[in-house]
Amino acid sequence: MIYEIEIKSPVKNENVLRLKLLEYGAVSEGVAEEIDIYFSHPSRDFTVSGESFRLRSSGQKACFTYKGPRETSKTKMREEIEFNIENHDKALLMIEKLSFMPVGIVKKKREKFRLDQYTISMDEVENAGRFVEIEVTSEDKIGGEKDVLDLALKLGLSDFENRSYFSIVNSIDN
Amino acid sequence: MIYEIEIKSPVKNENVLRLKLLEYGAVSEGVAEEIDIYFSHPSRDFTVSGESFRLRSSGQKACFTYKGPRETSKTKMREEIEFNIENHDKALLMIEKLSFMPVGIVKKKREKFRLDQYTISMDEVENAGRFVEIEVTSEDKIGGEKDVLDLALKLGLSDFENRSYFSIVNSIDN
Repeated sequence: MIYEIEIKSPVKNENVLRLKLLEYGAVSEGVAEEIDIYFSHPSRDFTVSGESFRLRSSGQKACFTYKGPRETSKTKMREEIEFNIENHDKALLMIEKLSFMPVGIVKKKREKFRLDQYTISMDEVENAGRFVEIEVTSEDKIGGEKDVLDLALKLGLSDFENRSYFSIVNSIDN
Repeated sequence: MIYEIEIKSPVKNENVLRLKLLEYGAVSEGVAEEIDIYFSHPSRDFTVSGESFRLRSSGQKACFTYKGPRETSKTKMREEIEFNIENHDKALLMIEKLSFMPVGIVKKKREKFRLDQYTISMDEVENAGRFVEIEVTSEDKIGGEKDVLDLALKLGLSDFENRSYFSIVNSIDN
């Protein structure tokens, strides 16, 4: 099983954080506007099961993402299944035909950095603010969590946000 | 709305049919093995609603296809939404996480021909036999149906099979 292991922190001083990232060798992969549409399931309540299912558009690209319930940990740790799709509009139409209903949208400007096994995202999220996310995708939960916490420490991050962007934007507690 | 309008006929003499196709200018696009996995919906019965949802792999490619209920016509006419996806195995995993259950598999060797607006498929279907399908994808139901019937006539086809491959393989009447 592939896990997404991530930690998120509000960005207080973007320039300081950016300099630290470059100092550790992080390489910017550019900026894109991401628009995520989240869906409800036709027969179970994702807010109860703790799952999520979304369609993302990022420039000309689109992908589906399913995330399983969170596991108890210091970081956010969830099963993640993600793959690119050829046509955003057809995917949206199909998903609605299958009775998944849109329940919310998250829009953000995301600058992605790559550093070894890490993906670091500097996000400006509409109606939520500026955040940095450190993420690894791994089958090794313990190693992955250690890696994420190590880099957060190096970057001077300590004030962590446990909620997803979807929850923040929609003022949901978890 | 985009419709798939198609007609299917058992192939009695493949060589005669192939010669006619070439005579009318059809161009072979090659042979591929297609494996379709059909799914049930988590909260409604597709055999009652007349819909279908499948994941197809064809060589290195994969796609999702949703088909709506059939409309009454001489040909098979259904809403169709289809798009390529990057990763077959991740898509299968995600679909199962979302509680769509595999209900059947159709395997076939398909040779595709292109002729003007038509896609013509010569199919050798495991546990069903040899068939030819003439298909157009169009918003124009009346024009599309006329086109399909015209070409069927030109190719000397008259014995039409109304069932889907899924129904034939699984001995379902409709």
